[in-house]
Amino acid sequence: MWLNASCFLEFQMSVPTPFLLMLRPRSGWQQWIAREEYVLSPSVPVVEFTDSFGNLCQRIVAPAGHFSVRTSVDIETAEASDTAPGAPFVEVQHLPNEALPFLYPSRYCESDRFTNMAASLVTGRISGYDQCSAIVDYIRDAIRYTPGDGQQIISASELNQLGHGVCRDMAHLGIACCRALSIPARMVVGYLEALEPMDLHAWFEAYVGNRWYTFDPTQTDLKGGRVAIAFGRDAADVAIYTQFGDPVELLNMDVRVQQMSGPPY
Amino acid sequence: MWLNASCFLEFQMSVPTPFLLMLRPRSGWQQWIAREEYVLSPSVPVVEFTDSFGNLCQRIVAPAGHFSVRTSVDIETAEASDTAPGAPFVEVQHLPNEALPFLYPSRYCESDRFTNMAASLVTGRISGYDQCSAIVDYIRDAIRYTPGDGQQIISASELNQLGHGVCRDMAHLGIACCRALSIPARMVVGYLEALEPMDLHAWFEAYVGNRWYTFDPTQTDLKGGRVAIAFGRDAADVAIYTQFGDPVELLNMDVRVQQMSGPPY
Amino acid sequence: MWLNASCFLEFQMSVPTPFLLMLRPRSGWQQWIAREEYVLSPSVPVVEFTDSFGNLCQRIVAPAGHFSVRTSVDIETAEASDTAPGAPFVEVQHLPNEALPFLYPSRYCESDRFTNMAASLVTGRISGYDQCSAIVDYIRDAIRYTPGDGQQIISASELNQLGHGVCRDMAHLGIACCRALSIPARMVVGYLEALEPMDLHAWFEAYVGNRWYTFDPTQTDLKGGRVAIAFGRDAADVAIYTQFGDPVELLNMDVRVQQMSGPPY
Amino acid sequence: MWLNASCFLEFQMSVPTPFLLMLRPRSGWQQWIAREEYVLSPSVPVVEFTDSFGNLCQRIVAPAGHFSVRTSVDIETAEASDTAPGAPFVEVQHLPNEALPFLYPSRYCESDRFTNMAASLVTGRISGYDQCSAIVDYIRDAIRYTPGDGQQIISASELNQLGHGVCRDMAHLGIACCRALSIPARMVVGYLEALEPMDLHAWFEAYVGNRWYTFDPTQTDLKGGRVAIAFGRDAADVAIYTQFGDPVELLNMDVRVQQMSGPPY
Repeated sequence: MWLNASCFLEFQMSVPTPFLLMLRPRSGWQQWIAREEYVLSPSVPVVEFTDSFGNLCQRIVAPAGHFSVRTSVDIETAEASDTAPGAPFVEVQHLPNEALPFLYPSRYCESDRFTNMAASLVTGRISGYDQCSAIVDYIRDAIRYTPGDGQQIISASELNQLGHGVCRDMAHLGIACCRALSIPARMVVGYLEALEPMDLHAWFEAYVGNRWYTFDPTQTDLKGGRVAIAFGRDAADVAIYTQFGDPVELLNMDVRVQQMSGPPY
Repeated sequence: MWLNASCFLEFQMSVPTPFLLMLRPRSGWQQWIAREEYVLSPSVPVVEFTDSFGNLCQRIVAPAGHFSVRTSVDIETAEASDTAPGAPFVEVQHLPNEALPFLYPSRYCESDRFTNMAASLVTGRISGYDQCSAIVDYIRDAIRYTPGDGQQIISASELNQLGHGVCRDMAHLGIACCRALSIPARMVVGYLEALEPMDLHAWFEAYVGNRWYTFDPTQTDLKGGRVAIAFGRDAADVAIYTQFGDPVELLNMDVRVQQMSGPPY
Repeated sequence: MWLNASCFLEFQMSVPTPFLLMLRPRSGWQQWIAREEYVLSPSVPVVEFTDSFGNLCQRIVAPAGHFSVRTSVDIETAEASDTAPGAPFVEVQHLPNEALPFLYPSRYCESDRFTNMAASLVTGRISGYDQCSAIVDYIRDAIRYTPGDGQQIISASELNQLGHGVCRDMAHLGIACCRALSIPARMVVGYLEALEPMDLHAWFEAYVGNRWYTFDPTQTDLKGGRVAIAFGRDAADVAIYTQFGDPVELLNMDVRVQQMSGPPY
Repeated sequence: MWLNASCFLEFQMSVPTPFLLMLRPRSGWQQWIAREEYVLSPSVPVVEFTDSFGNLCQRIVAPAGHFSVRTSVDIETAEASDTAPGAPFVEVQHLPNEALPFLYPSRYCESDRFTNMAASLVTGRISGYDQCSAIVDYIRDAIRYTPGDGQQIISASELNQLGHGVCRDMAHLGIACCRALSIPARMVVGYLEALEPMDLHAWFEAYVGNRWYTFDPTQTDLKGGRVAIAFGRDAADVAIYTQFGDPVELLNMDVRVQQMSGPPY
């Protein structure tokens, strides 16, 4: 499936303000970027680097006044996300080193506090993929998905008490429960085709059956048409923009995802 | 200053259990390891790798029954930790890429919730080193240091409510406040000569004046004689051992640090 | 300066053939990529990874038959390359770790055989930038630049005997002489605006005065308008495509660089 | 098999001299270091870092006068090196990213010049491990092993003309021929128990059958008792010491390897 996905951000700043951006999806085994645009207006110097999760990050100082970021990609991605019911749990000693950081608790995924709850959610399930599915089923049932209502990032245990949240929060809860079972789980921020209402999206991946599989507690069917922008332990690692210093005003944010008839040529 | 530092851990396990260990200090610009021992008993295969913070980590599967780990180092380290009153704040755009992960909130350092408190603690201080000092002064005053009482790891905000904690918890609070001011701060686990009572220790480092400086809220004088074993965002990254699966019994833990008269030859 | 740079490669293969491509310039402190296209025809799965020099590399298996790669970038780059006559030599103990691999001899830069020659070329020059300039002056005088005549990659010492070569070979000689003086030097493959005849280009960078500076033995004036595609120790590290197995036919290669009136919006 | 391996280096310097050392073996899946000593005399500041091949490297400035380095390890290593006749060639598209740098020509392994020779050496052999064996058999027959006679490092093609060389040179030839067949091959520098005459040793590893296997053209039987100190593309990457500036005098070098009756406790 070919998609064009774009994100437009518009800020108003009173003073020059340092930003860290994470808006450049990378080609990988899951997706191929055939065309990309990344326009800063006004144009400012940018330094790009790769963080420890492999994300391309951009460092800028945005000038005082009006500032906008426009990114757009033409990308080939899978029609459907792979599923693997029955895929087995991977013993910790057999995990690749790269998966290990995703076993530990993190800012918004207090997996150290979910040992009992995770165990009870997966009673009777085969270790591995089916445990993750049981966790996702629980979240879909127990937590009301309230898109657009996510100004403050909340953690897995806060969400569990509150009972409703946005995609990011629901991913946190899924991740925390997986890690509590020694299943590596990581946050993905990206685009999802036909998401309603359209916005940036967040879901999670769990490492079972010797690879990462996609899980999305907000969707009853695990749809394809996904564009991964950034990977991390939780929302603290994958903010599409982080701004330092005095708060700035986000005037506008516009996200669009459209199917293309084919590759861009 | 030459030190011999050693750590002995003794476990009893009912089933073979995967472990991740982080007990091998690395030589660096701060310390030189002249002699090292690392003995597993019984001897089992070990895979060693470097994590994203540069720590040497060991992966093992400990057999059922009795299992012990004995590490010992002869190390040269500074008599006194460097201090730098007045050292300036480094604007985010001038930080090295490596310092950026230490700006974000993490599991036990919810810096996103400390914006107001950190600002009030440093009122009137010069930005940078002196802000860190003010934070450490506050922790020393407000939090009672209760070594030996730290079974459960608690976070900066939990410590702030509780009012007493161990070195690790106090470091969490210092880190959270620094990050809330956009000062990179990281956890250090290691040995400290003449610590009373002797145990593994934790403190933190903040990046000001273009380098990392040592801060230790548990000590009125910032003593030298430190041996850094591991660096990370908080206690979730730098556990000296992490055990997966059913809980195991730690029968014994013995930490010793002794001054040597000189290098080991 | 805004440039559009593009490279079109067309192959004919008798069997499916693994390729490693290095055709995706990265944004960095020197250049900002505002728009990029990378089209494989027919479309095949691609895995992208970052090599140890920071280059984005693409792994594909090209199908039997006709295969083409079309890449295009809109990029902002400097009007003029920085120069720094008099910039000092950096003592090896003060070099950043990242510069150290560029001190050693490599496949096409046998710096271990250039100790005497390099010393004689720089007699009387201030250590550092001016030594690099003297080396480049020598190459311009002693070696005839014969663009388009470079089927086989030759090494610094082979070029020195032969007396004529392409940009890549001349860069090898410059790198070998710099390294023989303990100055880190690295190969750059990229585009150069207004190069005559237009083609991909190669030049080198030397680390003096605490940063990398551009040197180009093929050009009497050190022109700006450069787009770095890949960095490495020599041509063995930075081939824009490496093909494994039976040789394939490169039917066509078309490189274009054009000035743009401004950013692409 | 438990070994104690040690290396003593003694230098005389007229001026302070920067050194890069690579004398600290790492624990890995192949070997476990239970005790280690690394003594510089006189004691000087050391900075340690990990290079892109995973080797621990030490940077020092040795003072004028007499300077010595003494390293010693107690290590557990395999009695016998694994062999795998018939293990298959791994198609380039299925190699792990980490193996790719070892496919390219390097300073002393001009694999680009060995295509025909390598093909002729392996005529009739099954692709993979057996091709490597055929290459090693050829080297053993065609090249006279002359330990102790290796002041200047020579390349694979130089060795092929000369007809005799040291372990390092013979490894270069093996590596060049493997890479010419698209088999990743890398240099190993280390200790070998019962080597005659005792010295540091070099051999190579080739990636076939989905892992690295050991090959040693200097030994008729592929003995175990190996301690890997450093890995690289060829001798240019793995010098146990590299000295910059005016040449220094190596007064003494003493290498010892002894079997231990068991672990050091």
